Amino acid sequence: MFEDAELGHTVAKDEYTKRSAELRQALLAAQYELKGSRAFPVIVLVGGVEGGGRGETVNALTSWMDPRHIEVNGIGEPSDEEAERPRLWRFWRTLPAGGRIGIFFGSWYTWPIVNAVMEEKKPHWPRLESRVNEINRFERMLADEGALILKFWFHLSKKAQRKRLKELKKDPLTRWRVTAKDEAYFKRYDRFREVSERVLRDTSHAYAPWIVVEGVDSRYRELAVAGELLDGLRHRLATPEGPNAVPATPDPTPSIDTDRTVLTELDLGQKMSRKAYDPALEKWQGKLALMTRHKRFRKHSVVIVFEGNDAAGKGGAIRRLAAAVDSRMLRINAVAAPTDEEKSHPYLWRFWRQLPRRGNIAVFDRSWYGRVLVERVEGFCSMWDWQRAYGEINDFEEEMTAHGVIVVKFWLAISKAEQLRRFKEREAVPFKKFKITDEDWRNRKKWDAYSDAVCDMVAHTSTTRAPWTLVEASNKYHARVKVLRTVHDALERALD
Amino acid sequence: MFEDAELGHTVAKDEYTKRSAELRQALLAAQYELKGSRAFPVIVLVGGVEGGGRGETVNALTSWMDPRHIEVNGIGEPSDEEAERPRLWRFWRTLPAGGRIGIFFGSWYTWPIVNAVMEEKKPHWPRLESRVNEINRFERMLADEGALILKFWFHLSKKAQRKRLKELKKDPLTRWRVTAKDEAYFKRYDRFREVSERVLRDTSHAYAPWIVVEGVDSRYRELAVAGELLDGLRHRLATPEGPNAVPATPDPTPSIDTDRTVLTELDLGQKMSRKAYDPALEKWQGKLALMTRHKRFRKHSVVIVFEGNDAAGKGGAIRRLAAAVDSRMLRINAVAAPTDEEKSHPYLWRFWRQLPRRGNIAVFDRSWYGRVLVERVEGFCSMWDWQRAYGEINDFEEEMTAHGVIVVKFWLAISKAEQLRRFKEREAVPFKKFKITDEDWRNRKKWDAYSDAVCDMVAHTSTTRAPWTLVEASNKYHARVKVLRTVHDALERALD
Repeated sequence: MFEDAELGHTVAKDEYTKRSAELRQALLAAQYELKGSRAFPVIVLVGGVEGGGRGETVNALTSWMDPRHIEVNGIGEPSDEEAERPRLWRFWRTLPAGGRIGIFFGSWYTWPIVNAVMEEKKPHWPRLESRVNEINRFERMLADEGALILKFWFHLSKKAQRKRLKELKKDPLTRWRVTAKDEAYFKRYDRFREVSERVLRDTSHAYAPWIVVEGVDSRYRELAVAGELLDGLRHRLATPEGPNAVPATPDPTPSIDTDRTVLTELDLGQKMSRKAYDPALEKWQGKLALMTRHKRFRKHSVVIVFEGNDAAGKGGAIRRLAAAVDSRMLRINAVAAPTDEEKSHPYLWRFWRQLPRRGNIAVFDRSWYGRVLVERVEGFCSMWDWQRAYGEINDFEEEMTAHGVIVVKFWLAISKAEQLRRFKEREAVPFKKFKITDEDWRNRKKWDAYSDAVCDMVAHTSTTRAPWTLVEASNKYHARVKVLRTVHDALERALD
Repeated sequence: MFEDAELGHTVAKDEYTKRSAELRQALLAAQYELKGSRAFPVIVLVGGVEGGGRGETVNALTSWMDPRHIEVNGIGEPSDEEAERPRLWRFWRTLPAGGRIGIFFGSWYTWPIVNAVMEEKKPHWPRLESRVNEINRFERMLADEGALILKFWFHLSKKAQRKRLKELKKDPLTRWRVTAKDEAYFKRYDRFREVSERVLRDTSHAYAPWIVVEGVDSRYRELAVAGELLDGLRHRLATPEGPNAVPATPDPTPSIDTDRTVLTELDLGQKMSRKAYDPALEKWQGKLALMTRHKRFRKHSVVIVFEGNDAAGKGGAIRRLAAAVDSRMLRINAVAAPTDEEKSHPYLWRFWRQLPRRGNIAVFDRSWYGRVLVERVEGFCSMWDWQRAYGEINDFEEEMTAHGVIVVKFWLAISKAEQLRRFKEREAVPFKKFKITDEDWRNRKKWDAYSDAVCDMVAHTSTTRAPWTLVEASNKYHARVKVLRTVHDALERALD
């Protein structure tokens, strides 16, 4: 979920000057149109990590638009008037009227997240879920009543936040801004990340999307938020009134600086020699073998997903993995087109069937992600179908992890040039020829569409409990060892 | 929610013979159509109280249709195979294929409800809510994948269930059917009712509705279930394929025996003489006054809703109530058409504004129920708007009760003839004339439409925490005393 917001997105000064001038003008125009006949309320939530630039961005937004039609609500501790009424009362009283923009700096999300993070031991997930339900119903009602809702989450990686807090403290002019509370929050960065990821995932809807903004660079931040706000306003102003039809699933990634993605930022130049590979393979296979014989392993099962570019070396990696494990406990499921019986059930049915018993490992050579990859790109299912699949897949994996299943997911990535080289090699070598088909060449033509699908897939379905591991696979040795090591580490964490 | 299923619905033998013959033929025809080109799966859940006739009804259904295309799944304790997989695995493996009907006798609801009921102290609501979320996502996915889902809940009032268990135990042929478990469940009847009401309310959706069937009479039961199943099949077979548009909110009441409703079953012949009234009024006003001075009252607030037929005597009842209470703690909100400011906010906004602080009482002379009464009947809002209002209103009242607000809701009912008498009296008496307008006469013409709206309102929004009290108001003295007593009792329960 936060992967894209840790890439270090920045915007150059020239570009900022040009784009911000355009945006300001367009935002003002949209704001005046909003004051016209349609006059729906606009609700903008601003949340995220300390030091992520929330306040600065709110200030920029209000200075860019007509401040007479904007209200900024800072949400702190409830007043005594507020404490004597039901929880949501304080938010109801500050809801913007039609035609106005209400910016909530802190919101109905603040306390549920803070409470879940700061609780002494483990966060009380059912209680948090109960709060999340309440929020979902509230926002659904607001949307049904015509409000446009946009939710921005300012994110910093742990490293970036540490740096940011240090900088603030060094400067006497900003030192006051770092409170003891901020330090306490930072100590719990990992839990904060896990809790907020979960809340964001469960409350991001087409009618009230979360947009995760990297908070490092102020120019990037401002353009990202202003750009998304403008898009949201324009889209709604252009949509006829009435109960919402099925809208598009929002893209959690801002549309500024999209040339840099989780895929483009992979270092595909990773090297590993045969000489380094042989002992590394042996080492990690051995460690993994030991792990699967651990007493506690019998209480878990493992599900390993392999997806990747054609010819990225999934098969080879799977074989090296299988070699490390007692074959009685491992089953490899090669996923092809569904059978008739499978087609007459929900699409996840054939994967549920293959879930392993305790103490067993199921490897999926391609998987349920087909729906948001090949089925999306090839148009085998409707947009509505693949968009709802993100949530259904998260639910599926949540069912697994809640039951103690260890879920490991790999995307094996190679460059377009490397793929061409491998395709040609396959065609040239007789015993490799069966591996290359016309379909591979057809898929290759849709390289960019597949890349988009992969980025969206990672943004929607990489979670703390079932994260994606992107594997630089141009060097097969590196890829295989990384796969083995990742599976080993996941088991080690779970059995610990 | 269960009000309609406690009226003692029965079907006469002649009627049963005639209707069941028609239904069998129509069900078979629908079943064969289902086997045809559309071939979606049909999922029928059967749940409810012990002794409510679930088994018998399942047997009747399977004997009425072609059993080769029906599967009955009895859900008991999980097998060891099942226990080693995620919770939903056992249900995935029994899902019917397209064109088939899967009847689940016991289902994914069984254990969440049983666990919440049998827990030693209070049910753990957040944990139950977490299970409910899981179910909602699962059923939403099934519906999106094309399944037709119908959920039947067999209900017996406490009295009826006691009688039923006694009968079964008396007969040596049926004695074996009453287990120690059944007795243990019956001991917790009230909690079972509260838990299941909540689960049903939170999982009833247009795409997977709950239909509450009174379990006393086997003929009524069978016709009700078979009739709803037939309606569901026919409706779906006639609907074009594709992602569901916004469907109608399901009616939780079966369409058999609709001549008897919670309104027709009221005894409007209740009498109270002036001589009995005066001391009763004094007594209950005094008791109520005492209650509002209770120390613990300061931790609560009270919201009292008055709705009712025109001329049913809301004003008089409110005045008697107000007389019992220190006027500094009471505020009467007469609800008229919304102002411009109110219109530019969600419709519940103006009611949220009026919520009282702790230690205070807010009376609403007409209320947020206008949306599902006058706005529905007069067409002031779309069907989509008033249908979603049931859930929004339940959420609103849940916010209140969760915060300690005591919610009391009255529907004051008079007969059509009594209303005519009062209208004429108002027209004849000069100082009462202001109370009667052309609108009252216009509303009167829509008597039946209003009655339908009231029954739906009660079915959807009468909950354990915020129940509707139907007040027989043809005798004003009776009505006023019942109102006072009901408010007093609600306070007493809450402060206890």
